[in-house]
Amino acid sequence: MDGIENLKQLGANEPIASFLGLRLVDLSPGYARVSMKMKPEYLNFNGKVYGGIIASVADQAFAYAGNSLIMPNVASQFNIHYLAAVDATDELFAECTVLKKGKRMCMMEIKVTNQQNVLVALATGSTIPLIGR
Amino acid sequence: MDGIENLKQLGANEPIASFLGLRLVDLSPGYARVSMKMKPEYLNFNGKVYGGIIASVADQAFAYAGNSLIMPNVASQFNIHYLAAVDATDELFAECTVLKKGKRMCMMEIKVTNQQNVLVALATGSTIPLIGR
Amino acid sequence: MDGIENLKQLGANEPIASFLGLRLVDLSPGYARVSMKMKPEYLNFNGKVYGGIIASVADQAFAYAGNSLIMPNVASQFNIHYLAAVDATDELFAECTVLKKGKRMCMMEIKVTNQQNVLVALATGSTIPLIGR
Amino acid sequence: MDGIENLKQLGANEPIASFLGLRLVDLSPGYARVSMKMKPEYLNFNGKVYGGIIASVADQAFAYAGNSLIMPNVASQFNIHYLAAVDATDELFAECTVLKKGKRMCMMEIKVTNQQNVLVALATGSTIPLIGR
Repeated sequence: MDGIENLKQLGANEPIASFLGLRLVDLSPGYARVSMKMKPEYLNFNGKVYGGIIASVADQAFAYAGNSLIMPNVASQFNIHYLAAVDATDELFAECTVLKKGKRMCMMEIKVTNQQNVLVALATGSTIPLIGR
Repeated sequence: MDGIENLKQLGANEPIASFLGLRLVDLSPGYARVSMKMKPEYLNFNGKVYGGIIASVADQAFAYAGNSLIMPNVASQFNIHYLAAVDATDELFAECTVLKKGKRMCMMEIKVTNQQNVLVALATGSTIPLIGR
Repeated sequence: MDGIENLKQLGANEPIASFLGLRLVDLSPGYARVSMKMKPEYLNFNGKVYGGIIASVADQAFAYAGNSLIMPNVASQFNIHYLAAVDATDELFAECTVLKKGKRMCMMEIKVTNQQNVLVALATGSTIPLIGR
Repeated sequence: MDGIENLKQLGANEPIASFLGLRLVDLSPGYARVSMKMKPEYLNFNGKVYGGIIASVADQAFAYAGNSLIMPNVASQFNIHYLAAVDATDELFAECTVLKKGKRMCMMEIKVTNQQNVLVALATGSTIPLIGR
């Protein structure tokens, strides 16, 4: 079984994916696409979807793209720009592309869009490959 | 009723706080402290607590500290450094301090520690006060 | 005279552009491209071009793209990922694209490449439009 | 000669430090303090000190603090928040503290203040230790 299939199988039993309703849509080496339906439970005290939930959708695409290259490939830094408010009835899609695949550090970009293809967040992040630890 | 009391009351009914078990520990103008118990549901496919969950604890302290100054005060950017792995049995504490309180932009720092006072994450973020919108 | 022409004229007399040899290559609303030749003066104690110099090339494209929309449009936050080392004989090119043009906040992405079109840095940044201050 | 003395000697001949007038004020393992006098050459087209110059002061404290631990210890990511405008007559001070010293990644915080002790910028950054490369 190759790395991508192994990762998909691990992901199928992932506790956080079940808890948040994160769904893997597409996965290839250095690329991942994830979706997640928003819910009323995710609203903050301003009546909009919580920032940590939007970050969580991005984080799942980030995790899959990184671990598709080397596993484990752990996140060390993640920066997100919130560009549009998200409602409880929205569905979000996060797409992650690897921009640098290094032996000591990988760097990725993640775009989060809603069901109308509006860019709601843009994130970048760094990971540390732990192979041979 | 003053702003802090108003915010606490809104927070008491916040959907995401109930969903994630986020607890407000301390709140004053420009400062907030929040706690959250980890759970097995929050684990990722590497057996550690999901990055988006750690970001969510930080995000709640960030949201309270920002909205304690001006409401609504919406997040526009958030950068987090992951410094130590978190387990399902840990409890996390996030403390946010406002470093700049501007009319057009506020900037804050958030420290996330575990029950042994180990720094597990450090974040900084920017908010946009919407007063007079 | 329109805003773009006005900005170009101001830029032609900009002290930092003269000091660092920053050259504006292309400018339109929400987009800027800048170039800068590296020099031995820019090397750090590890024999590579200083990070602050690479950031400076990106910062100029960021400044032009932001001020092409609204002026002044001041930087509040800037995050850069260093992806490849730069030598004293390289020439760098920075290209900035606006991803969000808001009344209260703008967000941009900047790609820095060398003369061989290698991506040496990727940055994102936030600005605050000061119009009507 | 120990690592700190070796680094100081290398720094004494550093091209960028001479070019920008960067001065090392204090150095110990995991800590550095740097100063730099502003100049009219550093102004941008809005009449304020260029963001890349402010980032450069922070970057020097970041570089010294990182290389004081392991050398070379190269920057992979740097995020800066601009909190107050800087004038051509100001002097800036950057102080860097290591928050995580890992084998594969280090993380630092840098505070930039002016001669009146106003916080003009706060930065955080990640480095990759290259020892044993």
